[in-house]
Amino acid sequence: MTNPSLLILPGDGIGPEVMAEVRRIIGWYGEKRGMHFDVSEDLVGGAAYDAHGTPLTDATMEKAQNVDAVLLGAVGGPKYDVLDFSVKPERGLLRLRKEMDLFANLRPAQCFDALADFSSLKRDVVAGLDIMIVRELTSGIYFGEPRGIIQEGNERVGINTQRYTESEIERVARSAFELARRRGNKVCSMEKANVMESGVLWREVVTKIGETEYPDVELSHMYADAGAMQLCRWPKQFDVIVTDNLFGDLLSDAAAMLTGSLGMLPSASLGAPMANGRPKALYEPVHGSAPDIAGQAKANPIACILSFAMALRYSFDQGAEADRLEAAVETVLADGVRTADLMQNEGETPVSTSGMGDAVLAAL
Amino acid sequence: MTNPSLLILPGDGIGPEVMAEVRRIIGWYGEKRGMHFDVSEDLVGGAAYDAHGTPLTDATMEKAQNVDAVLLGAVGGPKYDVLDFSVKPERGLLRLRKEMDLFANLRPAQCFDALADFSSLKRDVVAGLDIMIVRELTSGIYFGEPRGIIQEGNERVGINTQRYTESEIERVARSAFELARRRGNKVCSMEKANVMESGVLWREVVTKIGETEYPDVELSHMYADAGAMQLCRWPKQFDVIVTDNLFGDLLSDAAAMLTGSLGMLPSASLGAPMANGRPKALYEPVHGSAPDIAGQAKANPIACILSFAMALRYSFDQGAEADRLEAAVETVLADGVRTADLMQNEGETPVSTSGMGDAVLAAL
Ligand SMILES: CC(C)[C@H](C(=O)O)[C@@H](O)C(=O)O
Ligand SMILES: CC(C)[C@H](C(=O)O)[C@@H](O)C(=O)O
Repeated sequence: MTNPSLLILPGDGIGPEVMAEVRRIIGWYGEKRGMHFDVSEDLVGGAAYDAHGTPLTDATMEKAQNVDAVLLGAVGGPKYDVLDFSVKPERGLLRLRKEMDLFANLRPAQCFDALADFSSLKRDVVAGLDIMIVRELTSGIYFGEPRGIIQEGNERVGINTQRYTESEIERVARSAFELARRRGNKVCSMEKANVMESGVLWREVVTKIGETEYPDVELSHMYADAGAMQLCRWPKQFDVIVTDNLFGDLLSDAAAMLTGSLGMLPSASLGAPMANGRPKALYEPVHGSAPDIAGQAKANPIACILSFAMALRYSFDQGAEADRLEAAVETVLADGVRTADLMQNEGETPVSTSGMGDAVLAAL
Repeated sequence: MTNPSLLILPGDGIGPEVMAEVRRIIGWYGEKRGMHFDVSEDLVGGAAYDAHGTPLTDATMEKAQNVDAVLLGAVGGPKYDVLDFSVKPERGLLRLRKEMDLFANLRPAQCFDALADFSSLKRDVVAGLDIMIVRELTSGIYFGEPRGIIQEGNERVGINTQRYTESEIERVARSAFELARRRGNKVCSMEKANVMESGVLWREVVTKIGETEYPDVELSHMYADAGAMQLCRWPKQFDVIVTDNLFGDLLSDAAAMLTGSLGMLPSASLGAPMANGRPKALYEPVHGSAPDIAGQAKANPIACILSFAMALRYSFDQGAEADRLEAAVETVLADGVRTADLMQNEGETPVSTSGMGDAVLAAL
């Protein structure tokens, strides 16, 4: 039997720095747990543009299609702001999502106890928070046609199209219901069915899937603006939230920020099962490329490390090993080990990016 | 000279209850300050549907076009959830916005000192918060064509279209810059220019208006997901935020909730100047129709009262009188007068909807 394969795409900004720590963790699993991975590495985003004039080459795309899981750092940076829309770093990431058909983006918003005071919200509002946002990732206004900037009479018009088919809604709804069964057994679906017909269809399809296939899971619906409000007011009312690509982008970022643990949050983007039974998968931290602190050994690698933990859980069916890695991170935090973004109180131990990697390895 | 005219549309749920208190305030201004208004009243939303089978009759639309300002309570309720999309209560409100061409929706997110502890955010994050969200209100995905649910092959597809013309972006940008000049002189524009071409055009046009017409105003740009994050993290970094219809819907609701003063927040929707120089205008509370507490004399009328204060300021150029009304509300709150939604501590005085109206009148 061959080893499972990983493609690492460190990307831009702090991406390479945090990914270096993940490579050490991967090494640890090989050495200590006998879990060997075939790891290859390639470019994405601005780094790929600098080398090849495109944020993702066809060759890299091809590799991504043929590995068991992709680990991505982050893309983007001010240097690339002037680039044409079609070659911006983000297009590399969007191409991966689209061509790998990674329709279910799992974004846990979890508040780490040691960091609860970090939130701008009151401790009792966020302590113990653990929700899962399932964002549709391959359709909606991110990819709908027609799109572009066209001339109409004497002015230009910017156009994007929100489009959802029944089957696109069905499959992401199933992902959400499946996850809910392994968690708190509740799904809240969010759209703007009071304003958008695509939201009307979304609500109808999610309701149908719930009633016919998951009658045991409690399903509720909320308009996305009310959802944004309720996330800020009392996020613990939610278990699993399922929503479209654009609403999911805003709502999951707001939820992540609420936890106070932004530098800590991982994500998984999953598609259909491959021939070997594993889902197509890409794992990446929720945070961005943070160009302001890149190259200073200040970046917090935990979100990227926990993204690898999600890979262990969702791609390699190693739930116990994922638990182990997550527990190691909790231990390190409880011990007061802190990268610069997490420093808050006297008595904490400031560490660099690799210092945090050391601490997690030691805790493992 | 004739009196300025007001059309009151109480709408559904708690709408009629809170509007009753506004009518008393309007009466006070006539009696005590010699400011007389010609007030008429009509139906909108579910109430209009019940009476006429449509959430807004042509006759009401016609009236709205010919008054100096419209005051609206709230629309919607579970009773109407089963209605077809085209006659839902919300369509009445959307028709008013569209046909009156109320392109600039002003949503102050303000934290009242007496209520700061009410926020789910920490006191220092929200105390003294005073930001203004300017949301484009007549275009974007709310109104773009094509839209609907169509059959394609063997499944249905839900479609909505985001469309922004240069001139639509220009006029709402100007509203934001004008407001900023009278406030903190900063505008932050939010879109998803990294993903949507309509966002690319938005950013370009706002930049152009800023550089050519408002070089004295500080302009920044943020992706809407980062904006949602930053609103949750440190809202005081903002002065005026300008954004599109859909992002504005979510972001302004999140901002409103953050203040802890949701039952307190008014809004103004303004269009182009009419022949008499006044802008077309509709004023409404940010909160909804709250069917769960309707008819129980529990509703907080302050958001609706402060919406009338916005009318005094923006439609009738009575800034000093608006200040007076706002100060009266602050006094009442400082005195511990509280509707049910605001009760928090011992020693506060619980009042009904009309009790709050009494208190504001007394403070005036
Ligand atoms: C980088 C960008 C294209 C991306 C998105 O908008 O989806 C990011 O914000 C995210 O949420 O992963
Ligand atoms: C009631 C609804 C149509 C409306 C909107 O989506 O604009 C509301 O949420 C608002 O923000 O005024």
